[in-house]
Amino acid sequence: MNTLSPGDKVLMFETGQFSTLWRDLAVNLGLEVDYIPSDWRHGVDPNTIESKLKDDSSQSIKAVCVVHNETSSGIASDIQAVRNAIDAAKHPALLMVDAISSLGSLDYRHDEWGVDVTIAGSQKGLMLPPGLGFNAISDKALAASKTSTMPKAYWLWSAMLENNKNGFFPFTPATNLLYGLGESIKMFEEEGLENTFARHARLAEAARRAVQAWGLEIVCANPDEYSDVVTAVYMPDGQDADAFRRVVLERFNMSLGNGLGKLQGKAFRIGHLGDFNELMLAGTLAGVEMGLSVTEIPHKKGGISAALEYLAAAQA
Amino acid sequence: MNTLSPGDKVLMFETGQFSTLWRDLAVNLGLEVDYIPSDWRHGVDPNTIESKLKDDSSQSIKAVCVVHNETSSGIASDIQAVRNAIDAAKHPALLMVDAISSLGSLDYRHDEWGVDVTIAGSQKGLMLPPGLGFNAISDKALAASKTSTMPKAYWLWSAMLENNKNGFFPFTPATNLLYGLGESIKMFEEEGLENTFARHARLAEAARRAVQAWGLEIVCANPDEYSDVVTAVYMPDGQDADAFRRVVLERFNMSLGNGLGKLQGKAFRIGHLGDFNELMLAGTLAGVEMGLSVTEIPHKKGGISAALEYLAAAQA
Amino acid sequence: MNTLSPGDKVLMFETGQFSTLWRDLAVNLGLEVDYIPSDWRHGVDPNTIESKLKDDSSQSIKAVCVVHNETSSGIASDIQAVRNAIDAAKHPALLMVDAISSLGSLDYRHDEWGVDVTIAGSQKGLMLPPGLGFNAISDKALAASKTSTMPKAYWLWSAMLENNKNGFFPFTPATNLLYGLGESIKMFEEEGLENTFARHARLAEAARRAVQAWGLEIVCANPDEYSDVVTAVYMPDGQDADAFRRVVLERFNMSLGNGLGKLQGKAFRIGHLGDFNELMLAGTLAGVEMGLSVTEIPHKKGGISAALEYLAAAQA
Amino acid sequence: MNTLSPGDKVLMFETGQFSTLWRDLAVNLGLEVDYIPSDWRHGVDPNTIESKLKDDSSQSIKAVCVVHNETSSGIASDIQAVRNAIDAAKHPALLMVDAISSLGSLDYRHDEWGVDVTIAGSQKGLMLPPGLGFNAISDKALAASKTSTMPKAYWLWSAMLENNKNGFFPFTPATNLLYGLGESIKMFEEEGLENTFARHARLAEAARRAVQAWGLEIVCANPDEYSDVVTAVYMPDGQDADAFRRVVLERFNMSLGNGLGKLQGKAFRIGHLGDFNELMLAGTLAGVEMGLSVTEIPHKKGGISAALEYLAAAQA
Repeated sequence: MNTLSPGDKVLMFETGQFSTLWRDLAVNLGLEVDYIPSDWRHGVDPNTIESKLKDDSSQSIKAVCVVHNETSSGIASDIQAVRNAIDAAKHPALLMVDAISSLGSLDYRHDEWGVDVTIAGSQKGLMLPPGLGFNAISDKALAASKTSTMPKAYWLWSAMLENNKNGFFPFTPATNLLYGLGESIKMFEEEGLENTFARHARLAEAARRAVQAWGLEIVCANPDEYSDVVTAVYMPDGQDADAFRRVVLERFNMSLGNGLGKLQGKAFRIGHLGDFNELMLAGTLAGVEMGLSVTEIPHKKGGISAALEYLAAAQA
Repeated sequence: MNTLSPGDKVLMFETGQFSTLWRDLAVNLGLEVDYIPSDWRHGVDPNTIESKLKDDSSQSIKAVCVVHNETSSGIASDIQAVRNAIDAAKHPALLMVDAISSLGSLDYRHDEWGVDVTIAGSQKGLMLPPGLGFNAISDKALAASKTSTMPKAYWLWSAMLENNKNGFFPFTPATNLLYGLGESIKMFEEEGLENTFARHARLAEAARRAVQAWGLEIVCANPDEYSDVVTAVYMPDGQDADAFRRVVLERFNMSLGNGLGKLQGKAFRIGHLGDFNELMLAGTLAGVEMGLSVTEIPHKKGGISAALEYLAAAQA
Repeated sequence: MNTLSPGDKVLMFETGQFSTLWRDLAVNLGLEVDYIPSDWRHGVDPNTIESKLKDDSSQSIKAVCVVHNETSSGIASDIQAVRNAIDAAKHPALLMVDAISSLGSLDYRHDEWGVDVTIAGSQKGLMLPPGLGFNAISDKALAASKTSTMPKAYWLWSAMLENNKNGFFPFTPATNLLYGLGESIKMFEEEGLENTFARHARLAEAARRAVQAWGLEIVCANPDEYSDVVTAVYMPDGQDADAFRRVVLERFNMSLGNGLGKLQGKAFRIGHLGDFNELMLAGTLAGVEMGLSVTEIPHKKGGISAALEYLAAAQA
Repeated sequence: MNTLSPGDKVLMFETGQFSTLWRDLAVNLGLEVDYIPSDWRHGVDPNTIESKLKDDSSQSIKAVCVVHNETSSGIASDIQAVRNAIDAAKHPALLMVDAISSLGSLDYRHDEWGVDVTIAGSQKGLMLPPGLGFNAISDKALAASKTSTMPKAYWLWSAMLENNKNGFFPFTPATNLLYGLGESIKMFEEEGLENTFARHARLAEAARRAVQAWGLEIVCANPDEYSDVVTAVYMPDGQDADAFRRVVLERFNMSLGNGLGKLQGKAFRIGHLGDFNELMLAGTLAGVEMGLSVTEIPHKKGGISAALEYLAAAQA
């Protein structure tokens, strides 16, 4: 929010809990948020954005903010399409993207997609503990930050940019995490980023096949927007997702993601990001499948077999 | 072998590769070994031992040596029955047991079963790196060691017993492993040894159900002697176990145990000892099942599902 | 600054580089700062504060901000005296204290001294990597935060307080550091906080005796304000502190603290905080003493001997 | 002892506790030991060895066994001179050297010095935990091992040599220590072995200067035989070394080496091997110097200053 001033208008799109938390943050900072509602089962709709921007003849909207990968609902939005919508509306709003849970697991292109501000963190696809945040900023965003009147100190880009020139930090850096980041980058280089993304796509597809074989419903309604980072799964009607998660934790020592916000108690989430492989996924799906049996939740057998068949075929 | 003298006669029973290596070691040390042959598919036969001892009217046999859990063939022998056989023969031979791979995973009772010398190590059920060896010795064995003329220095019990009285070691101890041993013991205490043994029994049974569902044959022919530590599995005729293992390693980054000695190339081994749980077993079985698919080895599907059904029922 | 609103007036006291950085931060956030200048050789002067507050008949000053332990100059200020000064002036300004480098090394009493807002971090006396920040707040500060119009989101206390009630965090917590914090607290409990503070006092006094024996000058001019956390030392005239520090680093693999701000190139700093003992101090002082010899900087011999004599006497 | 047979005669030289333990081990294994007595203050005397071998006209002596660096007394013997003595006597005895505490800290040349059997371990100069043993053997030793009748199994070279050809081990290897060994070797390569040896020589000389400045006596009587690995120091008459060591441990958390065997209670030992530098030595000497003060043992001040002056001059 370093580019904005209190009272500025921003356009945000509801994709789930994290877009909602971002909305709250913007409101706290005194911004006027136009929050486009949605059902947590679909990604960002570029058409709505284009139309909102076209209607904004006074160009009062200063930024469009979208979450690339919505961890709460397992939905990945098409950032390139959002960029195209802004361009089609010939609107000067900055494009800001939350890539916190996608960076390192999904293909993401700050420059090529014309993103103005990308925010990311160390604790997801980069396979590190929490503690590092990342900003990528365009020249346009940097220029905007200079006229921003939002009070800021710790988040001030200028101090960071000035110090980084000489390899320093304006504040005490988390040195041990920076060493860890070096290792993460080596791991990406060894595997090859293309292979990393393909691995996540393969494991995510296997997870979805297991869910479908069990006869359960994936939260994300549009297959084009399936997240290869996390799969959110609806419980059958009348079943409590948190009770199910508790049994899986107690019996099989596995912590499934909880349903967040609107999905609390109604869905659980299977993460398949970061340092993850076929056998770890098999263990994860086994925990879900045995949990469904132990809790006598109605489901069809064979989820894990469906996943393994897909994964074996992918290796043949 | 601290209780024996060069030229002494010992009775050993062939249960697989590790009993054979022990035989070789005894021969190297100048002992005369009566090695009872077997097919690597059965445990120690107490009747043969009883009859051999009864025939030894001169009591020239000084020790009976058996492997509790044969890692190469996945066979656990009945040590109490061997003790009973020696007693029935009214023979003074010492009972020596290799409990290296069973200690901490299978129920083992040195005193209660009347074992004279037990040898064990840190690197299996105790969940530590290799580097610590353990001896449990009876008073009878200790007495025998005093008249033993086998040259010995490093292995000499007297130096160790003398130093241990004051908490010292006659040689540089592997201090870091001793700290690790303290942690292993804490882990056993937290789980409760009964639960540890039950867990290994449960996971081993699940592994065997997967093998049977695939239509493959378990090396151990007698269900009473199935090892809850490791399951050795025959490949279908004409299939190379090592080629199969190589594919599983390359594609799924999982190292299956190789067939040892007589079983080389003919069998692979699934370990399920130490710090191991349901989801790790599921990952392991998934690697085998996908490996069988990728290498197009004839098998039936559903091994992992059979294992999970058994495990879920065990938790219900 | 969560209790304040843009345009509010705050009184701050110059004790060194960190009070100056705090001043800058306040200015960035739109506060009006009355920064009481000093020479970086003395701690906070309570009399000046009392007089400033008495002069503020309109009570426009909303907060008094002081650094407890100034790492740049090695000066520890008397927080109780500042509290007394505010009380004597009968002024309602909040008392805010930066205890970042003192917490865990110097005696610090948030409640007893009537501090309204204390800020601290994990990376100094708590012996952890950077990554955790701490706030202790009085009821008065909490009430003030509710009328504060400073835009805030991440720093918002209300979200943290609300979530903490149930043991949660509003944002991803640095879980590994929280485990580390548990260990730090255990270490304090084992030693006893009184003993911890006494240890730092003893080691700091020994360091100062070494400096004095070398004939060098301590930056902190008032012995009552010597910091037991870090000792800043002036180089003799005409000597470059950074060149000296470079030689010590290259020859003895020891990184001395650099002179900050006004002291850049003129002083170096010897840290003696956190997990530190007599022999580590001896190693540190040896590095300085050998560095002084190697660089042929005029000094008297015997610094380390003076330190050891003091430390040995303290143990007798 | 793999090259020998029970009843063989070996010539050993008393340099301290470890040569004595080796003597005991040989006796245990049934060898006839001619143990040349000495005063634990001098290294191996090549002349005595030459004369003993010349007297052995029947060539019944099968091996000459010497300890390169005697850890108990801080004496390093001249192995090249022992080789020369054997050659001068034109005697076929094998030369066996215990290089356990010297390998990696002192220059050692198995091939160049014509050693037949070298034994070493991981826990000293190689900076690893205990758990790895090393043997370097000459062709002559290997040939001798083939006719040796000493019963052996675990120590049998043939099994190791056979397996190593293909990169395997006859027994479970301590894999984690082998990774550690890789790191140790990298550290040697980075520093350069010449520099490693020079570093130990420099630090050892500094330690000796401190001892001499305190007015204490070094156990090793011959400066040519000072060990650069460890310095053994006599307590003044009537002072108990172990009481002194206990105070240093309690007050300064530093564990000095105890006097072994003949030196028990009479001497303590300062180790300066492995991963050790100037500042660590300063910390160590500070612990000794403060310990001498606290226990009021008569000594002169200034030991650590003498060491630092020497070390600083070495860096100038």
